[in-house]
Amino acid sequence: MTASRIESDSMGEIEVPAQHYWGAQTQRSIQNFPIGVSRFKWQEPIISALGILKKAAAQANAELGELPGDIADLIVWAADDVINGKLNDEFPLVVFQTGSGTQSNMNANEVISNRAIELSGGNKGSKKPVHPNDHVNRGQSSNDTFPTAMHIAVAQQLGKRLFPAVGALRNTLAAKAEAYQDIVKTGRTHLQDATPITLGQEIGAWVAQIDFALDAVQADLPGIYSLAIGGTAVGTGLNAHPRFGELAAQKISDITGLPFRSADNKFFALSAHDALVNLSASLRTLAGALMKMANDVRWLASGPRCGLGELVIPDNEPGSSIMPGKVNPTQCEAMTMVCVQVFGNDAAVAFAGSQGNFQLNVYKPVMVHNVLESIELISDACLAFNDHCAVGIEPNRERIAENLSRNLMLVTALNRHIGYDKAAAIAKKAQKEGSTLREAALALGYVTAKQYDEWINPIDMTHSG
Amino acid sequence: MTASRIESDSMGEIEVPAQHYWGAQTQRSIQNFPIGVSRFKWQEPIISALGILKKAAAQANAELGELPGDIADLIVWAADDVINGKLNDEFPLVVFQTGSGTQSNMNANEVISNRAIELSGGNKGSKKPVHPNDHVNRGQSSNDTFPTAMHIAVAQQLGKRLFPAVGALRNTLAAKAEAYQDIVKTGRTHLQDATPITLGQEIGAWVAQIDFALDAVQADLPGIYSLAIGGTAVGTGLNAHPRFGELAAQKISDITGLPFRSADNKFFALSAHDALVNLSASLRTLAGALMKMANDVRWLASGPRCGLGELVIPDNEPGSSIMPGKVNPTQCEAMTMVCVQVFGNDAAVAFAGSQGNFQLNVYKPVMVHNVLESIELISDACLAFNDHCAVGIEPNRERIAENLSRNLMLVTALNRHIGYDKAAAIAKKAQKEGSTLREAALALGYVTAKQYDEWINPIDMTHSG
Amino acid sequence: MTASRIESDSMGEIEVPAQHYWGAQTQRSIQNFPIGVSRFKWQEPIISALGILKKAAAQANAELGELPGDIADLIVWAADDVINGKLNDEFPLVVFQTGSGTQSNMNANEVISNRAIELSGGNKGSKKPVHPNDHVNRGQSSNDTFPTAMHIAVAQQLGKRLFPAVGALRNTLAAKAEAYQDIVKTGRTHLQDATPITLGQEIGAWVAQIDFALDAVQADLPGIYSLAIGGTAVGTGLNAHPRFGELAAQKISDITGLPFRSADNKFFALSAHDALVNLSASLRTLAGALMKMANDVRWLASGPRCGLGELVIPDNEPGSSIMPGKVNPTQCEAMTMVCVQVFGNDAAVAFAGSQGNFQLNVYKPVMVHNVLESIELISDACLAFNDHCAVGIEPNRERIAENLSRNLMLVTALNRHIGYDKAAAIAKKAQKEGSTLREAALALGYVTAKQYDEWINPIDMTHSG
Amino acid sequence: MTASRIESDSMGEIEVPAQHYWGAQTQRSIQNFPIGVSRFKWQEPIISALGILKKAAAQANAELGELPGDIADLIVWAADDVINGKLNDEFPLVVFQTGSGTQSNMNANEVISNRAIELSGGNKGSKKPVHPNDHVNRGQSSNDTFPTAMHIAVAQQLGKRLFPAVGALRNTLAAKAEAYQDIVKTGRTHLQDATPITLGQEIGAWVAQIDFALDAVQADLPGIYSLAIGGTAVGTGLNAHPRFGELAAQKISDITGLPFRSADNKFFALSAHDALVNLSASLRTLAGALMKMANDVRWLASGPRCGLGELVIPDNEPGSSIMPGKVNPTQCEAMTMVCVQVFGNDAAVAFAGSQGNFQLNVYKPVMVHNVLESIELISDACLAFNDHCAVGIEPNRERIAENLSRNLMLVTALNRHIGYDKAAAIAKKAQKEGSTLREAALALGYVTAKQYDEWINPIDMTHSG
Repeated sequence: MTASRIESDSMGEIEVPAQHYWGAQTQRSIQNFPIGVSRFKWQEPIISALGILKKAAAQANAELGELPGDIADLIVWAADDVINGKLNDEFPLVVFQTGSGTQSNMNANEVISNRAIELSGGNKGSKKPVHPNDHVNRGQSSNDTFPTAMHIAVAQQLGKRLFPAVGALRNTLAAKAEAYQDIVKTGRTHLQDATPITLGQEIGAWVAQIDFALDAVQADLPGIYSLAIGGTAVGTGLNAHPRFGELAAQKISDITGLPFRSADNKFFALSAHDALVNLSASLRTLAGALMKMANDVRWLASGPRCGLGELVIPDNEPGSSIMPGKVNPTQCEAMTMVCVQVFGNDAAVAFAGSQGNFQLNVYKPVMVHNVLESIELISDACLAFNDHCAVGIEPNRERIAENLSRNLMLVTALNRHIGYDKAAAIAKKAQKEGSTLREAALALGYVTAKQYDEWINPIDMTHSG
Repeated sequence: MTASRIESDSMGEIEVPAQHYWGAQTQRSIQNFPIGVSRFKWQEPIISALGILKKAAAQANAELGELPGDIADLIVWAADDVINGKLNDEFPLVVFQTGSGTQSNMNANEVISNRAIELSGGNKGSKKPVHPNDHVNRGQSSNDTFPTAMHIAVAQQLGKRLFPAVGALRNTLAAKAEAYQDIVKTGRTHLQDATPITLGQEIGAWVAQIDFALDAVQADLPGIYSLAIGGTAVGTGLNAHPRFGELAAQKISDITGLPFRSADNKFFALSAHDALVNLSASLRTLAGALMKMANDVRWLASGPRCGLGELVIPDNEPGSSIMPGKVNPTQCEAMTMVCVQVFGNDAAVAFAGSQGNFQLNVYKPVMVHNVLESIELISDACLAFNDHCAVGIEPNRERIAENLSRNLMLVTALNRHIGYDKAAAIAKKAQKEGSTLREAALALGYVTAKQYDEWINPIDMTHSG
Repeated sequence: MTASRIESDSMGEIEVPAQHYWGAQTQRSIQNFPIGVSRFKWQEPIISALGILKKAAAQANAELGELPGDIADLIVWAADDVINGKLNDEFPLVVFQTGSGTQSNMNANEVISNRAIELSGGNKGSKKPVHPNDHVNRGQSSNDTFPTAMHIAVAQQLGKRLFPAVGALRNTLAAKAEAYQDIVKTGRTHLQDATPITLGQEIGAWVAQIDFALDAVQADLPGIYSLAIGGTAVGTGLNAHPRFGELAAQKISDITGLPFRSADNKFFALSAHDALVNLSASLRTLAGALMKMANDVRWLASGPRCGLGELVIPDNEPGSSIMPGKVNPTQCEAMTMVCVQVFGNDAAVAFAGSQGNFQLNVYKPVMVHNVLESIELISDACLAFNDHCAVGIEPNRERIAENLSRNLMLVTALNRHIGYDKAAAIAKKAQKEGSTLREAALALGYVTAKQYDEWINPIDMTHSG
Repeated sequence: MTASRIESDSMGEIEVPAQHYWGAQTQRSIQNFPIGVSRFKWQEPIISALGILKKAAAQANAELGELPGDIADLIVWAADDVINGKLNDEFPLVVFQTGSGTQSNMNANEVISNRAIELSGGNKGSKKPVHPNDHVNRGQSSNDTFPTAMHIAVAQQLGKRLFPAVGALRNTLAAKAEAYQDIVKTGRTHLQDATPITLGQEIGAWVAQIDFALDAVQADLPGIYSLAIGGTAVGTGLNAHPRFGELAAQKISDITGLPFRSADNKFFALSAHDALVNLSASLRTLAGALMKMANDVRWLASGPRCGLGELVIPDNEPGSSIMPGKVNPTQCEAMTMVCVQVFGNDAAVAFAGSQGNFQLNVYKPVMVHNVLESIELISDACLAFNDHCAVGIEPNRERIAENLSRNLMLVTALNRHIGYDKAAAIAKKAQKEGSTLREAALALGYVTAKQYDEWINPIDMTHSG
């Protein structure tokens, strides 16, 4: 049997497991919201962000004379344990709780309060000398703290996970684009043979698309760096020192090394989370770019004998439990599954973002959850794709050359010399008769052999020089 | 200058173009909702459905003694003009108006009232002898009439457009599946070569998927046939004769030949439109099926020389303004664009469907608009695809045979004889050395030539017998 | 240091932790797909379904003479351990892997093989006497086994979780509808005061909407009960006994007690998962219904003093970390957050469902993951909402009566007696002057006091008798 | 009977209505794509953009010596007719055609060619002296012209429609925020009474949210200003003068006055349209902001007697066909319906954006269609909302004051003086007993009357000074 102690809040007393730091409100939430418990507990990014926030708030309050220095020091000490992950097990709550994240804010308040009490030699649950509301939550409301923690968590994960992981894949592809800039191959539009390009150009388009999406994520950062803290309950800042929001944002910036600042309009910062909606959309654009790239890779690597076969990708595992020797583009598949998940997550975020009322949007937890999940999945998938596929992509030069030699769309280079209509007649004749383009061109008499060989030069057609 | 007359409603008087039948409330809506006017005016399906509804209501009210027979006759006469499309120009309102469709209900009331007045020799705008509210709208509210018209319109369009159009494509494909049941070809999983199937089996899977989606649409029909009429303002049926809903539904059924019935719970019928949400989702499933089919067609027809090239599709138009002789799978492209539009429409429908409050969902017009658009687009696209692509699909037997002969996954048939591991070794050796499967198998000594030829028989492997 | 052993597959040898039952392909997948590891490992529903499938397959193969009885017995024995959850830790793979679920199918094959080997006294990794491919996967491919496991898992979770949980909430609400059938209150349309209804009618609409959505889920079951097993690699059933699919489905039905059957068209069953797309859509409809209900509850309970205040809901926890005494509709918030998540999950499922190519859809894992998550979240949220909110919903009779007495829309009952236009004049006068409806009616002289009192009778207006 | 003439293309000859300027490929498209004809014909924005593009291309080609000056002059002359809307009826094609927009590009080429021929005194259909491909389409491909036209159309509609329309509404709201900065009212979080704010603060949050969304749209403009022109068929620029893309972009910039420039990576510009995906997402964010605002307005205006009733909005039309005197928030309803449509359109755009293959995304028409529709609908709805609702919003000062006086959350101001726990006790006592906050505070003895009156000062609590 687990030992328990009594904690209390404005609803009254409640038993809490003795070994845990959380208090009454956390305990009530555990009991009231057994929803998706095995998979939806908050993870390190949110827990750490709450710790950072509470540390910064204590520092700011102390500096403003709103908290005694010794109380603030205890809070900072305890908050550091939260930040450093020592108390992760003290955060048992799930995403699907109150829509303001109140219970997770109180979870942080309670854990830090009890840990601070313990550090000061007091009794957990006594609320002395550090009260969860009056001290840890000083000058704060869930309505401004939780969205602040949301932004801290998201900004940190972008920096720690997304940019490095996507960047690694991007750089691998850019190196491939550089390496293969001389390989001329069949372009394809409408899935049909088109005029030639280089493999470098083809891969370079993926890089450009990823770069464009990353730029969009970057463009969302100012909104993410803008913090709700200081707005308290409804945006007015009631009960907070007038300079609290600004100073707390500065402290958060100091702790994280990221340029956080106090939001210009706190009413907006509580009632809508459009910075997250925008970011989610940019992640969706990034997912769309990765999907296009992964689809191109698997189609170009299709075969080995009855597909396009122009790329060779690493054989990482047996492809089939029944077809011996089969190798599948599994990294592409994992990547594209991640992409559809990101699309789905984004749909949830945008829907939630539209549902605010008056001074509060009460879909905060589900919004940040989905954004963090998308960041995590894209990051993980890019690293896996990079390590187990992209670095090993090789051209099948033989197949590429064979395809190019058969490509009727080389005829396009003749437009400027003989006009579109005659060029079309050549291509149609060749296709109908199964002949080469050169044969058809000469048979129709529209060009001489010398002209043909001078005008039809695939590498020139790529303008890659 | 256009002549005008004065019409009035409970807001007061307003000028209306003299030649038009609509009245004050329609006129106010024209002025208040200039939103998407060039594309979002209600079209024939909704106009006709409103006419059917008003006719049925007049008949039911007359039978129940709620309307004098002569008044009812006038309404029926005028409503027939609406049903027959003679008064389409009298319905100038757009989708984006009041969320209950009140103004379109009043548009119908006003037009029928004035047309009936005219038929009786009276003066338009006089409301005598046929009043738009007291007579044409007798026992009705926009809250029950508009959703009733929504269901009538949708049910009719499914019957007139969707089932015949999708059915035509489905039957063309089914005939192709039958015709090509003996063509053995390379199967493909993960885009990679897999064990053989027949072209008939491949096309038959498209047919089965379309049939499954059509079954889902059919399964939604009972919900569509269930009508809100009789619920009036909030579902209680206030001001309607107790038998009105049931009898009006019967009359609507008589007029349309479709098994409409009065909804069991009128409160639900006004406050939610989940039958439309479900139908929209089934249309989305159908779109997903058509997208898969269209994608398969264009990939199988990719080339002409550097793609899979196993199918030949009709050349309908020049494919490129620059690449002479290029032919593109344009019907596939139109179809897949329709599919993504249907997905988007469905997202709007489901979102709207979730936003009801209390006794009313005020997203009625946008919901039915999107469902009708999806029906129209799928129907049109299926007919176009059928006529300009599906009927002309032909196998490229030479390419199919060539691909099949090179397919290493035929090795799978050896599993039962020599085990998965040895079979894998054969396939890997062939792929590595660029040899045939037979050569590799014999070289490894795992089978004799006789065994190989007996065991590796593509047509047998399709189990198509 | 962890002891390891050598396992092998067609790619060669690889080290595996000695204490674990999984083999080479599972180990490769662990290393190749470190994507979302902390939250996306398969959970009990899929693990158990794979166990059920493998047991049924072994039984069917034994009965058809495709496996020796002793081998089949060992497989059944080991599979029972999987079904019973004893080997959950042996399933370390995540959702984002190969899109056919091949590696999870192989995970099951490897674990069952090694557990069976152990039960027979052999050495793990020896593949003797029970080979993961040749015996456990006998007559199967990932392409038919994984979608079969998907359907088994989903069908079981619907029966074990969704129907009971949603049913519990539905029944609580139905009892409330019954209990409050005599409480007359203000109806609301367009958020504006409308004609009266009973609280029972209002709550009854929620019940009807939930019932409608549950019916839609039920209507999807035949598609879910239809199994891909027997199709093997591409749908032809190559390498499986001709009766294997049918018999395996029968065995699965025997084990689960659910009416599973062999799919009519195996090509469709591998290349598309439209039964899951439809089910996901029905879960979305259900989420929409729950969202409407939860929104109605929180609006009706808004206040306590400056909102509608017609319902009282339980006070479960302190509502604010800053506003003392505040109580929030937290169960409604958790529920509506679940609803937007279900909408997002559905978007991912439908997108994924549209992306099949040729003989395979390679988004299987992400599709079933989202469907299972939606089932879990709806179920959990309905139980929490039921226990912590619905059972405690009480009418605020005083506020309801006060509101009703002020409601001007009672005037609608006069339409039948004095016409719409005069009734409108009464309502407008009362609103303008702040008087009661009765005062305005009498002042205008359109009705006598006796008539008014006879005609304006709220309970009669609800037609609830 | 309509007279016809013969036009020809690389497919052969075809009859075209004599009075029309379009040629063979347009005619084929009319016949091949009868999809959504009544609603999906391209409208002025795309037609005009194609005219601008063709004019700029002719100018650039002339300057580069790629076209004779007289030919270029004829093209410019004819293109001006397209730009000025004189030839709108010559653009009969619909959205659902080839996915590159090839047929609309050819429609422009044909119309301009024939109009130019006519202007030069030649015969329509003769292709002399101005050939649709060799001259009008000189150095161009549909693959670069159509996305260029997409960007031109979108950029122009943003400038002409979106920014002015949304700006008008934004400014009206900003003026209201300013006007009502002294009206103190009940804040609401979780739909529950919260600490006070001013009406100015409440409305100001809507303004801030709209501003944030408009900033996001602005941030997307550089991507929109980046043009594909110069990439021709696959991005290499084959058949175009090396400086053509840059110079054509400059000419487009000159014509439109917008800072268009040539895209850095043409391969990306053809194969993906992520600038439109991002823009669509920003429009979705804007729609979410407008939805929140419109929902707040209708809830605050709910009643007139049984709702919140704190705002009064204009009575624009009778609200009900059955409930006399009812007035509904119809502009809010039209707006929110537009918002869900924009969400749906965005889902289509993002889906389409993910589906590119190799050198081309063939969902161009459906992407730009949805973006343009969203721009149009948001613009129209904002103007309608502004004119018919926002300008007339008035506070119901009496109701606001009454609600504020009853609001228990004023107690929050005591936290700093007596602590959270005692403040909670006061609020709970008042709620339980139906007393005022002051009465409860004094009864509990936690504050003196003097302290209460000093500390509880609503206007101070808003920090609005």
